[in-house]
Amino acid sequence: MNSRWVENPTHVHDLGTGLPEGFRAAGVACGLKPSGAPDLGLLVSDAPGTVSAARFTRSGVLAAPVLLTQERCRLDGIRAVVANSGNANAATGRRGLEDAARMQGAGSMAVSLPEDRVAVASTGVIGVPLDTEKIVRGILDARGNLANDGDAAFTAAISTTDRFEKRASLRVELPSGVVRLCAQAKGAGMISPSFATMLCFIETDAALEPETADLLLGVCVKRSFDRVSVDGQLSTNDTAILMASGASGVRIEPESEDELRFGEALDTLLRRLALLIVRDGEGARRVGRVVVHGGHEETVGRAARAVANSPLVKAALHGGDPNWGRIAQAVGAALQDSAPLAIDIWIEDVQVCRAGTALPFDESALAGAVSGDEVEYTVGLPGQGAEAEVFFSDLSHDYVTINAEYTT
Amino acid sequence: MNSRWVENPTHVHDLGTGLPEGFRAAGVACGLKPSGAPDLGLLVSDAPGTVSAARFTRSGVLAAPVLLTQERCRLDGIRAVVANSGNANAATGRRGLEDAARMQGAGSMAVSLPEDRVAVASTGVIGVPLDTEKIVRGILDARGNLANDGDAAFTAAISTTDRFEKRASLRVELPSGVVRLCAQAKGAGMISPSFATMLCFIETDAALEPETADLLLGVCVKRSFDRVSVDGQLSTNDTAILMASGASGVRIEPESEDELRFGEALDTLLRRLALLIVRDGEGARRVGRVVVHGGHEETVGRAARAVANSPLVKAALHGGDPNWGRIAQAVGAALQDSAPLAIDIWIEDVQVCRAGTALPFDESALAGAVSGDEVEYTVGLPGQGAEAEVFFSDLSHDYVTINAEYTT
Repeated sequence: MNSRWVENPTHVHDLGTGLPEGFRAAGVACGLKPSGAPDLGLLVSDAPGTVSAARFTRSGVLAAPVLLTQERCRLDGIRAVVANSGNANAATGRRGLEDAARMQGAGSMAVSLPEDRVAVASTGVIGVPLDTEKIVRGILDARGNLANDGDAAFTAAISTTDRFEKRASLRVELPSGVVRLCAQAKGAGMISPSFATMLCFIETDAALEPETADLLLGVCVKRSFDRVSVDGQLSTNDTAILMASGASGVRIEPESEDELRFGEALDTLLRRLALLIVRDGEGARRVGRVVVHGGHEETVGRAARAVANSPLVKAALHGGDPNWGRIAQAVGAALQDSAPLAIDIWIEDVQVCRAGTALPFDESALAGAVSGDEVEYTVGLPGQGAEAEVFFSDLSHDYVTINAEYTT
Repeated sequence: MNSRWVENPTHVHDLGTGLPEGFRAAGVACGLKPSGAPDLGLLVSDAPGTVSAARFTRSGVLAAPVLLTQERCRLDGIRAVVANSGNANAATGRRGLEDAARMQGAGSMAVSLPEDRVAVASTGVIGVPLDTEKIVRGILDARGNLANDGDAAFTAAISTTDRFEKRASLRVELPSGVVRLCAQAKGAGMISPSFATMLCFIETDAALEPETADLLLGVCVKRSFDRVSVDGQLSTNDTAILMASGASGVRIEPESEDELRFGEALDTLLRRLALLIVRDGEGARRVGRVVVHGGHEETVGRAARAVANSPLVKAALHGGDPNWGRIAQAVGAALQDSAPLAIDIWIEDVQVCRAGTALPFDESALAGAVSGDEVEYTVGLPGQGAEAEVFFSDLSHDYVTINAEYTT
């Protein structure tokens, strides 16, 4: 699934499958999902010098695995991940923290690593105790299946309502040599039926300083997962972890050409996965991209998010309706007490509003422009120098069906 | 349509129809709506000493009639309103302001009042020039139809996608005598297909000081229209105007028992109309009420609004699904970086979460409790003394259908 909004730079090539050297993964079914589908993933880096970085949801209601990983792991030295789907282990209190610790302990034993090197992540229903007996059996089972090409099985095991896999394996040509860069993600809503969240695990055999890993992950997450919205709902379990084994022997020095090229590859990778999450958004038919430019960083960000999260804009995107009045309304609502606002609006390349005033436009041309898989909205606010971008899915009947069904 | 959440105080009685003494209204069809339905309303107070108060949307994209009324009217002395449906006169630039002024001018002539005593209000499609020839003809026509019992016709003329009228005529017994209190409102979404907005006009024959009118309207709007959400979308045209003719001879002194009782009646009236707007929310089947209590005013308000505007909570309300994990998620998302949050959650009278941890509950009892027309959610945050309340509609297939259809 390609998008005009993300293209591989010339030094980045798709490989299909297979983890970077020094990584092994597995995915098995441990019985958390009633369907019997895979629900337990194990990921490990064999290289002792593995460096990592991590980012988590900022929700005030953090799932137990997020709290535990944040507080009990060396976030710059994670070497293994135990992840389950089917249960978010969120809103589960002290019992939940103990269950996450048990999961970590079993993972630690299975891969022979100290506990603080083993991250845990969960996704699924909120408010239900985690069955750690199943988790422990699953970890044992997964250990026997660990393989360098286990990334597809691992991806399947962390998926919930996802309709297709979000995964990539890239060959990246750097001035100092060739490295591998892979990632596995899941998500079809910030939160689904009552299955929570976005997870993403990224592996490379490049050698990175911890500070470089943290910097690159931070920047690229901001430009990817932080810029997507299916339903505007921040989850309790969001977790993204980057691990760099160094097994390729290619060292990425800070502020080098290698770092720039590697960063470009990571940026492409995460933006591609983020777009796949939006495209797989619950009930989604189309993907919208809104770009707001103007003179004030915070303002353009707020306006872009308001457009992306407006159910009226999303329903119009769904219906192929070039209803730009809703864009104006959403921006106006986001920027209260700022009237009169000299707002410009374009849908695709057609300007429909200038300085707050409707422009005549060719209705049939515009109707054609909004009937594709991807629709771009541009909003101009007064001033220059700041720009914000958000990708979002449409609001469909299927979204309502998926989320109105009795789930407990 | 009664609600357990709003009951008339014992000194307030429904009369059915008819404006307070000294008020006349009319509603006619002037051809703005392609359907030929009524779309032009005229409302006038014959009493020279009429006192008024007004509140408007705070959107950064204000419709022309809102700007014009705010800037060119004596807001404490409005004696007439010209309102149209079928066109919001929003995002129409300088031309829009001129059209609003023409509308005001024609209204002024029709009712023989200075321009600054004539408010204008519009609701309907955004970004389309207003046909003021039709407006002027409509005003002439309406003038001939002005009547004391014209409130029903006026209500019809300001409606857009409303499925039922939002109107009340009350008899209010005060210590100093009996007064009449009426209101006509419209709204089925903060913004509908591309028809914007909430309008409400309130009339009484009580005699009020301008300061009293402003105070009471401000307080009561905050407790009613400011507490409802259909889709979280602030409109470009929201307008609420209170006019007090004084024709009853009953004077309401500041800080008197009369003021208290009159305020109670106004509060009941506006909350009732606000609830009708939610109940008539686009595609709505059920109304939810979320009450958040805790120690911090701004925090409980933000949390309540996040729950009311969550598409996941709204879809669960639609489906009769007691999915409280979504309440926890919405509150957590609203109160970022506050983890761990000791949150309590009740659905109706059943507590499902205590201090952030799931509680066992009787599933069938809870399923029954969420299957009615009105569902109440209570959220407890740490601390005491602050409370916020929001009424909201559910998210349905019909909402998507209404808002995904091609509208231009």
